[in-house]
Amino acid sequence: MMKELFGEFLGTLILILLGNGVVAGVVLPKTKSNNSGWIVITMGWGIAVAVAAFVSGKLSPAHLNPAVTIGVALKGGLPWASVFPYILAQFAGAMLGQILVWLQFKPHYDAEENAGNILATFSTGPAIKDTVSNLISEILGTFVLVLTIFALGLYDLQPGIGIFAVGTLIVGIGLSLGGTTGYALNPARDLGPRIMHSILPIPNKGDGDWSYAWIPVVGPVIGAALAVLVFSLF
Amino acid sequence: MMKELFGEFLGTLILILLGNGVVAGVVLPKTKSNNSGWIVITMGWGIAVAVAAFVSGKLSPAHLNPAVTIGVALKGGLPWASVFPYILAQFAGAMLGQILVWLQFKPHYDAEENAGNILATFSTGPAIKDTVSNLISEILGTFVLVLTIFALGLYDLQPGIGIFAVGTLIVGIGLSLGGTTGYALNPARDLGPRIMHSILPIPNKGDGDWSYAWIPVVGPVIGAALAVLVFSLF
Amino acid sequence: MMKELFGEFLGTLILILLGNGVVAGVVLPKTKSNNSGWIVITMGWGIAVAVAAFVSGKLSPAHLNPAVTIGVALKGGLPWASVFPYILAQFAGAMLGQILVWLQFKPHYDAEENAGNILATFSTGPAIKDTVSNLISEILGTFVLVLTIFALGLYDLQPGIGIFAVGTLIVGIGLSLGGTTGYALNPARDLGPRIMHSILPIPNKGDGDWSYAWIPVVGPVIGAALAVLVFSLF
Amino acid sequence: MMKELFGEFLGTLILILLGNGVVAGVVLPKTKSNNSGWIVITMGWGIAVAVAAFVSGKLSPAHLNPAVTIGVALKGGLPWASVFPYILAQFAGAMLGQILVWLQFKPHYDAEENAGNILATFSTGPAIKDTVSNLISEILGTFVLVLTIFALGLYDLQPGIGIFAVGTLIVGIGLSLGGTTGYALNPARDLGPRIMHSILPIPNKGDGDWSYAWIPVVGPVIGAALAVLVFSLF
Repeated sequence: MMKELFGEFLGTLILILLGNGVVAGVVLPKTKSNNSGWIVITMGWGIAVAVAAFVSGKLSPAHLNPAVTIGVALKGGLPWASVFPYILAQFAGAMLGQILVWLQFKPHYDAEENAGNILATFSTGPAIKDTVSNLISEILGTFVLVLTIFALGLYDLQPGIGIFAVGTLIVGIGLSLGGTTGYALNPARDLGPRIMHSILPIPNKGDGDWSYAWIPVVGPVIGAALAVLVFSLF
Repeated sequence: MMKELFGEFLGTLILILLGNGVVAGVVLPKTKSNNSGWIVITMGWGIAVAVAAFVSGKLSPAHLNPAVTIGVALKGGLPWASVFPYILAQFAGAMLGQILVWLQFKPHYDAEENAGNILATFSTGPAIKDTVSNLISEILGTFVLVLTIFALGLYDLQPGIGIFAVGTLIVGIGLSLGGTTGYALNPARDLGPRIMHSILPIPNKGDGDWSYAWIPVVGPVIGAALAVLVFSLF
Repeated sequence: MMKELFGEFLGTLILILLGNGVVAGVVLPKTKSNNSGWIVITMGWGIAVAVAAFVSGKLSPAHLNPAVTIGVALKGGLPWASVFPYILAQFAGAMLGQILVWLQFKPHYDAEENAGNILATFSTGPAIKDTVSNLISEILGTFVLVLTIFALGLYDLQPGIGIFAVGTLIVGIGLSLGGTTGYALNPARDLGPRIMHSILPIPNKGDGDWSYAWIPVVGPVIGAALAVLVFSLF
Repeated sequence: MMKELFGEFLGTLILILLGNGVVAGVVLPKTKSNNSGWIVITMGWGIAVAVAAFVSGKLSPAHLNPAVTIGVALKGGLPWASVFPYILAQFAGAMLGQILVWLQFKPHYDAEENAGNILATFSTGPAIKDTVSNLISEILGTFVLVLTIFALGLYDLQPGIGIFAVGTLIVGIGLSLGGTTGYALNPARDLGPRIMHSILPIPNKGDGDWSYAWIPVVGPVIGAALAVLVFSLF
């Protein structure tokens, strides 16, 4: 159990370090990757997931996401007693990973004057604020994520191929469905860094848009539950 | 048979949700992926096909395309009695998938004032209108698609590798041949959403360019038939 | 033997259709992929090679390139009697493939007024004309190509993985070494279409820059021979 | 042992030829790939690593990086007596590879008037100069690199799949963490070319920013040692 929790912790740490790292590289001023576009963001997040899964996949099932953990538990693939510890480990990893993002880009954070850009390197936000539509976006994205992960389990994939497939899937969901809310798809990925945003001493950081914070927590859980439902039809 | 039809339905739904999703993300105003370029469109569509095939591939042969279904039937790989039900399931999936695209991007559709952009997130249209040339474009693209799919069947590919190959193929056809007509390659992908375009209540949506609608239906079927012919030389 | 030659013909046809197709899409006016950048060109060519190899790989060894054919013969992997027929089949495929590119983009060719752009969709040309340096560019690029292809043969790769590797290699050579001369790397890919350029009736097409034409023929052959030499040290 | 050293030499040569080749293509004036963006740089470097590993992987363990060599030795995977010869071979390969980059792009080097651009095609430099933060950047990037390489060793990956994984990892580290210091991650990759910069006769080349040169040497070694430490927890 400790090995599994260490895996979820370390994997989510790597996920956030690389995932929010690519956002910081694109958004913060004076980086070499500044303003390098959506293809950079989406490929960065996709590879972040794949690398995090490779690093943690021999320690734990590499959920790295409370919505996936809850979905797997609903499907009967994880004892419910493990769910809360898994989620705690994922949040701890996300929060420490975010501290590393901040260390990695510290001079660029210090040079940033736009509070919205700073928050974007921590948590997602909607392109157009609309509660129902934003919630649908997070539900649909996570539905596709979890349904496809379950479907991949039906194939007799060689070692590593499944991880490449999930990384590719994340690139695809980002490209296709990410433009509306920034595709959190993962409560730990969004809420963990948002908590760090309120703690870390960054000039010009502004507020954490807490009125939006529940959507990337609730939406992914609903999306994962729907995926379990549809997958039960298989 | 119901399992197969459910697979074709669900796979085509995912195909259109992710495929027209990436177009909506690039074309509609105020998204985070707005105006992010051809590489985003083509990679988005390629991954859409791969994800749709992974999700449906244990339920059905994952044609997700009437032109492929007809090509496989011509080659003797599917009983003709299955062709019409397959095509119906593909159209149903395409139409429901398009409704999900609309839900996903609803505030962005509402903010769009250009009718051409709205139609582009449903169906393809030619860069330069020219009946003969546009028909050739759709024939050639689908010919390469179906011939390569048949050729892939000759390899003893490990599970999942064939699906990655088809996704990569779709990226390639888009990059190389898609710039003329938008590479429908698939009657259900084009006509299904075009029907939804006439139904869904979108401000400023304009007409559905119905005079063009037959080309992305007829061209792909001809292209698939030509691929069967050339493949018979193997 | 006829099966092998048909493979080399069909594979090189697909190679040029997709490879020069992506150049036409990026360079010619009014396409949907106009001016979409170097990543589109290089990924398009890489996937072109992979698709061409998948289509032809069960018919022939899928050289699709006289420099590779000569390199393999020098290494002792192909009887010298096959070399000339292979090269003829490759040139025939390249020339027919180029006709298909022209058909695919005909309205866009008709709208193009810049002779340099038209030639770029047929054959390569140097960014800065400099005979010695341009020759070195083609030698180095083909050296890396052929050496890596030989090295891949030492691995016990699963079916299809070698083809993905070669496609990725082509993307990499394009990204890293292609910016100087446009990375022909292949006499059939360059000279075959250049011959078609002099034949096809295209308004504003200008001359075929024949004084440069020997470099993308001679350079790749030298590069392949050097790769055989270095590989013999393995 | 000679075979191993030849592998490390040849692999690092290919690594620098393709890796600094893509930088030269993007940065130097008048290339076809000029100013083509961060996605081109990062994909070019990722494929450079994969190609270099394929070419050298049957001769040596394909470290191609003194930090990896030291990490593997610390973990007990290489006798310490091999470490210094390996590093010498890697530096020799990097320096010869850089000469090839210069030959490949010679007319473009001659046309370049900006000393910073010239140095960028040899060695890395920080986006914002800040000793502590720049050192952290190189430590973190190399930590992720070496930890993931070690983790990949735990999987029973098919031939070639591990090399694709490492190439993908390099793309990801570049996208996510490279925007601060240009992700040297490798003392030979940075110091070897910097030495060549002081030797090669390039007009307008300026100085080699030697005050920064220790960071991409020391940072990667610390990062690799940290990865060994964390991996020992597995």
